[in-house]
Amino acid sequence: VLIDGVATDRLAVADRGLQYGDGLFETLAIRDGAPCLWHEHLHRLSRGAERLGIPCPPPELLLREGRQLTGGESAGVLKILLTRGLGGRGYDPPEAPRPTRVLTRHPWPDYPETWGERGVAVIFCRTPLGENPRLAGLKHLNRLEQVLARAEWRDREIAEGLMRDGRGRIIGGTRSNLFLVRAGRLLTPRLDTCGIAGTVRGLVLRLAGGFGLRVLERDLRRADLVAADGLFLTNSLIGVWPVRRLGTREMSLDHLPWELIAAVRRATRTPDRERSASCGCPY
Amino acid sequence: VLIDGVATDRLAVADRGLQYGDGLFETLAIRDGAPCLWHEHLHRLSRGAERLGIPCPPPELLLREGRQLTGGESAGVLKILLTRGLGGRGYDPPEAPRPTRVLTRHPWPDYPETWGERGVAVIFCRTPLGENPRLAGLKHLNRLEQVLARAEWRDREIAEGLMRDGRGRIIGGTRSNLFLVRAGRLLTPRLDTCGIAGTVRGLVLRLAGGFGLRVLERDLRRADLVAADGLFLTNSLIGVWPVRRLGTREMSLDHLPWELIAAVRRATRTPDRERSASCGCPY
Repeated sequence: VLIDGVATDRLAVADRGLQYGDGLFETLAIRDGAPCLWHEHLHRLSRGAERLGIPCPPPELLLREGRQLTGGESAGVLKILLTRGLGGRGYDPPEAPRPTRVLTRHPWPDYPETWGERGVAVIFCRTPLGENPRLAGLKHLNRLEQVLARAEWRDREIAEGLMRDGRGRIIGGTRSNLFLVRAGRLLTPRLDTCGIAGTVRGLVLRLAGGFGLRVLERDLRRADLVAADGLFLTNSLIGVWPVRRLGTREMSLDHLPWELIAAVRRATRTPDRERSASCGCPY
Repeated sequence: VLIDGVATDRLAVADRGLQYGDGLFETLAIRDGAPCLWHEHLHRLSRGAERLGIPCPPPELLLREGRQLTGGESAGVLKILLTRGLGGRGYDPPEAPRPTRVLTRHPWPDYPETWGERGVAVIFCRTPLGENPRLAGLKHLNRLEQVLARAEWRDREIAEGLMRDGRGRIIGGTRSNLFLVRAGRLLTPRLDTCGIAGTVRGLVLRLAGGFGLRVLERDLRRADLVAADGLFLTNSLIGVWPVRRLGTREMSLDHLPWELIAAVRRATRTPDRERSASCGCPY
């Protein structure tokens, strides 16, 4: 663990990350010692920090510290956590926050190999998602809803649970975004009031056109999912998981956009060495 | 600071309190070295922990550690923070969580003395509250909404901001509960989908009958507040603040239930020595 560049695994209790969940995080796949989708993760972190009014550390600094932690890893996970730091009075944020950055290394998760090709079983969770446009899309540290939803099942055969907002719109999985195939088009939930705008979700939106596919953001309900020609889930560690079972219903994998899925998977597993070293974008 | 009974101000980064806001907290007034409303705070903490599936430490242990921290204080603040501790896999909580307890001592806040008698100025915040019945009422660690709402004003003359849910119902202040006087009755927002069920709010609900007052939980909107005969705010540190200005509108203090308010204030400032020492209730 590195906290503000120092090797320690203990954080000040007064940090607003603990006190209020006042911060953001990113979870990155590491391949051959380098992060995958670095640009996408840093872009989201930086935009999220801007929306919350937290100064974002320079990307070069995060990249250097990330490499220091994960340089020797053939496959692993890097988590970057950014908080508003110490200070302020109660909820009132300090006028000039000095953010805290926490980088942690984790082993690659031991998901069954078959889930990527043969698909996963998914349930509907009962815990709803609260709606708040000011927080929608952000990967912030307020994750109790996901914790409660994830606690709804223990069966290890179930890979993910889908969450709805208070109006019954399906938003996504507890830790993944959802795509639906219908009549040759891709649909994905609108994230205007809740949900996390995943980096791999963004990748699907950008790459789909190259495979002749349109992707539309829509209000989707349970009936839409049940009637779909196919479903898949995305996140930066799982890449893409086809859904083979939704509740008690078997789902076909035949109509999934396998070429697009293969391209997305490649992108999520390719160490972003060149772009991460030379990326001159302003994040 | 005491973490699990040990004098240290540093917490493990892997704690779920930081990672997901997976926990609860209580903020207690300290008078003459003893906590006020101890029973009420511990009752809420324990019920909240039950709802989240976090084992609650024995109240005797928390009381002993609280006294160890605040024993010499004539006036101060004790914050008790309870998290689900380490472990689990991502959002998935561990089957047998070993919770972390963090007790911190803070100075008494320096609110202007006049606010209690002459009343405070209050604004309406734009940041909404997300609705989630599973979290409603709990004083949990997911407080980004309150941080964003509190950041909406810097004017030190403004004491509090009122927050609405996505449907426009007024829920309360960023750190206080709201009461409204109308035709000799007290009304307070329903907290069925969001908001925190404050300990002093509970006290008002219990004591009002003794002063011949009925309190009703209602859906309240901006128009209800503007048309009210009077407004006041409660929390365990401020006790009761009458509202003398709502936005640009002057509010009368004449119709406030001053006898009830005095009784509530006494209760919030009385060190709960006897009850806290001998309270045999099961919380």
